[in-house]
Amino acid sequence: MTGANDTERHARAALTRIIEPGDTTGGRWLREHGPTTTLHRLTTPGPPLPGVTPKRWAGLRARAAHTNPDHDLATAHHAGARFLCPGDQEWPTQLDDLGDARPTGLWVRGTPDLRTWALHSVAVVGARACTEYGAHTAARITAQLAEEGWVVVSGGAYGIDAAAHRGTLAVHGATIAVLAGGIDHAYPRGHTHLLQRIAEQGLLIAELPPGDHPTASRFIQRNRVIAALTRGTLVIEAAHRSGALATARTAQRLGRHTMGTPGPLTSAQSAGVHELLRGEATLVTDADDVIELVGTIGTLAPRREGPLLPRDTLPPTTSDVLNALPAHGTAHPHDIARHARTTPDDAIAHLYELHSLGFVERNGDTWQLARHHPPHPATPAPQP
Amino acid sequence: MTGANDTERHARAALTRIIEPGDTTGGRWLREHGPTTTLHRLTTPGPPLPGVTPKRWAGLRARAAHTNPDHDLATAHHAGARFLCPGDQEWPTQLDDLGDARPTGLWVRGTPDLRTWALHSVAVVGARACTEYGAHTAARITAQLAEEGWVVVSGGAYGIDAAAHRGTLAVHGATIAVLAGGIDHAYPRGHTHLLQRIAEQGLLIAELPPGDHPTASRFIQRNRVIAALTRGTLVIEAAHRSGALATARTAQRLGRHTMGTPGPLTSAQSAGVHELLRGEATLVTDADDVIELVGTIGTLAPRREGPLLPRDTLPPTTSDVLNALPAHGTAHPHDIARHARTTPDDAIAHLYELHSLGFVERNGDTWQLARHHPPHPATPAPQP
Repeated sequence: MTGANDTERHARAALTRIIEPGDTTGGRWLREHGPTTTLHRLTTPGPPLPGVTPKRWAGLRARAAHTNPDHDLATAHHAGARFLCPGDQEWPTQLDDLGDARPTGLWVRGTPDLRTWALHSVAVVGARACTEYGAHTAARITAQLAEEGWVVVSGGAYGIDAAAHRGTLAVHGATIAVLAGGIDHAYPRGHTHLLQRIAEQGLLIAELPPGDHPTASRFIQRNRVIAALTRGTLVIEAAHRSGALATARTAQRLGRHTMGTPGPLTSAQSAGVHELLRGEATLVTDADDVIELVGTIGTLAPRREGPLLPRDTLPPTTSDVLNALPAHGTAHPHDIARHARTTPDDAIAHLYELHSLGFVERNGDTWQLARHHPPHPATPAPQP
Repeated sequence: MTGANDTERHARAALTRIIEPGDTTGGRWLREHGPTTTLHRLTTPGPPLPGVTPKRWAGLRARAAHTNPDHDLATAHHAGARFLCPGDQEWPTQLDDLGDARPTGLWVRGTPDLRTWALHSVAVVGARACTEYGAHTAARITAQLAEEGWVVVSGGAYGIDAAAHRGTLAVHGATIAVLAGGIDHAYPRGHTHLLQRIAEQGLLIAELPPGDHPTASRFIQRNRVIAALTRGTLVIEAAHRSGALATARTAQRLGRHTMGTPGPLTSAQSAGVHELLRGEATLVTDADDVIELVGTIGTLAPRREGPLLPRDTLPPTTSDVLNALPAHGTAHPHDIARHARTTPDDAIAHLYELHSLGFVERNGDTWQLARHHPPHPATPAPQP
């Protein structure tokens, strides 16, 4: 960790319970004064920080009086989660594009490296009340994306979100759910099992601390994280004025690609997507169309010119999985997991991470070392 | 008629039977030598015109030996058709954008003025083997376009073409069928009745002289006329490699708008349209979207600034229909027809023509003089 020191980390953890997601005034305080001073000003007597009414300042101070970051960090740890701060090696720097609306910190549950996954991720979002056609389309395209090594990011909601997560999990692919409440707060309740599976095979991330609940504005602000985290946002189905369209428009503002899948003109659930496609968004029909737009893993992954991350900076468990692959030929995740002394789900998560870094390649159900995997002085590629 | 003189007109009529549609070598001869000389060279001994092999020249001369333009013009006249040449007042000058691939002349059947209609026309084309969804979409959008005063141009084929023509005729709208054979040759045979209705209420046009048959290459060349004649081409349904896509691509090359209606990703008949929409074409969902792109009648029709065509240049029957409208209030086509001493179908055709010129307005089933119809010194608007 090269980012925040312990004091700053504790301050940011506390501030995730005080400052609402997307609050740019709070973001400005963090930028101008840093997290420690900001928290100090909120928890000790004195004049308010600039940009808020006295009433709002009083409200923030009332929240600040009840924070207990040690407890939140312990709860997160107990739930198998960690807390990331800007500047951490695992921090997804794409979020910095949000400026003062950048998250104060991120609560993350799951073994994969968030930064690495986010580098080659695509958002797939859409209507809660989707049609069979929409669910089928979402599942088909996300399965294709996952098989091509892309990470599918969505919001864990009913409808298209669920179809996107499930389509990815079905092919043992990599998926991230960005939640509008705490990472230990399964919402919607009907997705308790799905979110549990995502936590085991992928990542759950949240701006809110453990135990916090989603609200209407938190759902909206959550969408900006989905848009910022990914290289592009694909809307599968959306009625006019759908929240998924807001995610796409945020993606556009951030310079990300926006995409949509068409549907019948007779379907109200496609009308919003068609509206989007009449603007800047690109019509896509399958994962190849998406990848053509957001780029290929090859263009993201390190090549001979030099690795994106050198091999000795890999986290130990990721490194164990890499070392579990045979020098020649392919291996099943089950065997790789046994050699790396971990579970198959964990091995697959690390294999996708290694895939995004160009270390390994996938062939159907098996994996192998990439032919041009990044050279490293300490572990030279075997010479023939 | 300010265009071709009688000799040139006869020569062009003959040449429509000799030079194949879209033949740019023949087009160059017409441009460089004129129709009379070109025909003379083809029908008298002497060296070939440049740009053809001796074998091809011999083939053209063999055809030329069997032309009888007087007979063709008489046949056309008998079928209620006329022959238009470039430069004629009724010639649709948009076709000049085709350069040397411009039609040698056009055989036209139906009472409306082709030039006027073409000014505010949209092509609606698509798959022969269309789905119910495609036929429904074509009928809905063309009915809306017709009610907004737009002329729907298509190819008279089965599938989308037929749905487009029928959708227009169903609301007593204006439609043009561009045929790949002669205007007296009903193709496909199953559309004999439909083409008859179009000839009565709209226009049939053809590059080929009476009695000539469509061929594969003539279908392809016919598409360029549809693309050039109109302000934009809308593809409703098309599989990959469909002829309708070729029409759209020609429209693009000519600087016309190209549009497509989306459909389910699961439909092969929408796959070609989606391909088009991934390029330059614009996704449209209804007639308003089409009109937003190709412009409003208002921008095409004459305003107070001055008429597009002065009132005294109107053909006599059109003028009769205009004079049959009451000075105040609205009238039904049936009553207008009685006053103009013509049939209701004929009256409706002229009313659409007058609509495009800004002389009249439509209100549901009734028509009235436009409030700002073009002033003319010879026939001043009645003063209150």
